[in-house]
Amino acid sequence: MELISSHKCFEGKQLRYKHHSDANQCEMTFSIFLPPQAEQERVPMLMWLSGLTCNDENFVVKAGAQKYAAEYGIAIVTPDTSPRGEAVKNDDAYDLGQGAGFYLNATEQGWAENFNMYDYITQELPQVLLDHFPLNGASSISGHSMGGHGALTLGLRNPKLYRSISAFAPICHPINCPWGQKAFSNYLGENSQTWEMYDALKLLESTETPPHILIDQGEADSFLEEQLKLDVFTDEAFRHQNISINRREGYDHSYFFIASFIESHIIFHSKYLA
Amino acid sequence: MELISSHKCFEGKQLRYKHHSDANQCEMTFSIFLPPQAEQERVPMLMWLSGLTCNDENFVVKAGAQKYAAEYGIAIVTPDTSPRGEAVKNDDAYDLGQGAGFYLNATEQGWAENFNMYDYITQELPQVLLDHFPLNGASSISGHSMGGHGALTLGLRNPKLYRSISAFAPICHPINCPWGQKAFSNYLGENSQTWEMYDALKLLESTETPPHILIDQGEADSFLEEQLKLDVFTDEAFRHQNISINRREGYDHSYFFIASFIESHIIFHSKYLA
Repeated sequence: MELISSHKCFEGKQLRYKHHSDANQCEMTFSIFLPPQAEQERVPMLMWLSGLTCNDENFVVKAGAQKYAAEYGIAIVTPDTSPRGEAVKNDDAYDLGQGAGFYLNATEQGWAENFNMYDYITQELPQVLLDHFPLNGASSISGHSMGGHGALTLGLRNPKLYRSISAFAPICHPINCPWGQKAFSNYLGENSQTWEMYDALKLLESTETPPHILIDQGEADSFLEEQLKLDVFTDEAFRHQNISINRREGYDHSYFFIASFIESHIIFHSKYLA
Repeated sequence: MELISSHKCFEGKQLRYKHHSDANQCEMTFSIFLPPQAEQERVPMLMWLSGLTCNDENFVVKAGAQKYAAEYGIAIVTPDTSPRGEAVKNDDAYDLGQGAGFYLNATEQGWAENFNMYDYITQELPQVLLDHFPLNGASSISGHSMGGHGALTLGLRNPKLYRSISAFAPICHPINCPWGQKAFSNYLGENSQTWEMYDALKLLESTETPPHILIDQGEADSFLEEQLKLDVFTDEAFRHQNISINRREGYDHSYFFIASFIESHIIFHSKYLA
């Protein structure tokens, strides 16, 4: 594992690394914020999954989360959103290929060789992190847009791995929206049962006692109707008392929205990570 | 004046505009954060000046200042760091020409036609702002690196315009460092008296009662010794009780440093802007 950069930040450290990934068969980059408490003791960890076109740096630079991570003693890990490199398959579109991994294990030829972000995030990376950083093993997961889809689906499928789930403007029902249908048909082929393993709504429908979930959604988000499908997810979420969904008037899909409410998400996760 | 973008942020608005500048004879871009209080009443304003290579967006995206500006009811204006455009003189180096205006009025041929950031920041832009936004006329000034030089020099020369001054890692004595000597010799020619009008240390030496000044400086800043010259400025600052200089162990020259301490700067200015 190679250190790319290190900055002191809110008395903790904002670090960036690259390492070889067996799951994705390429070099992967991730960032980790270690709060000041990590100098004295092992700390819990929040995994943040970013959206389309992002890499590990967007959240680190734009969300302002380090202040609260330092306050509550939580490490924040921000992986890249896909495998990358010249040897990795890609597409000219912003919503397929590199920068658009959708946190799944691809099965279609050409994609399956590298696009195994589900295994990378839920198995390989956690072990790498435990081996190299002062983490105590307690984890929660959050994300934005495509990364909100990732947080919900990985969280619902791995309740022993993640103590709580949160999302900003998540893609709630990808099997029924253009982004999801394009990605899933390319990465997974036409097997609809496989698709449902990566659909937050379908997973919630088959879950009796989901983890605690917090969702924030901007009402002025231009992707809300066509791509995110929060309404139908909300209908299903009513079955469960431990799912909170906040609609925020006037807020859009940008990091200005995330920055405005990230404090409440860190506080939410801190309750379950303590 | 043309609105480029608008995002709700911490219950206020993060706006970006472009307009024709008479001082710089080109189109200039600036951003302004209006806190939620500006919907009910006129608010005070903090002018933020960024460093080399930056435009108006770096601070907006990276510093996390909107949270505190919203809390204390202060608008934050972030102008670009120089004139720009195909018709504007430039240089291949990162520390001269576009992105490196040094907040002065150039006198040398080729530069003088457009590089009049001193007049733009202290005269033209404040009037544009008062004409278009709910501001109450109270102003303070802050900045980083080259923008810290700007904040100190504009602030010391215009005590009636700015109620308080702050800076992160400012270039304190540009007439005696490589960045300043290169910029001043190109923009101002060889007249050393003109140079001293843009040197924070020289201005402080000739000021009996400076405004309240707050400076934060990272001890791990790789530019500290050669370019910033804080030590000699600190020697002179000892003459004045209302100048505070904090040295921060382990922090570097990046926006991670700024984000870590911007809250204390907003609180500092809020005392004088109330």
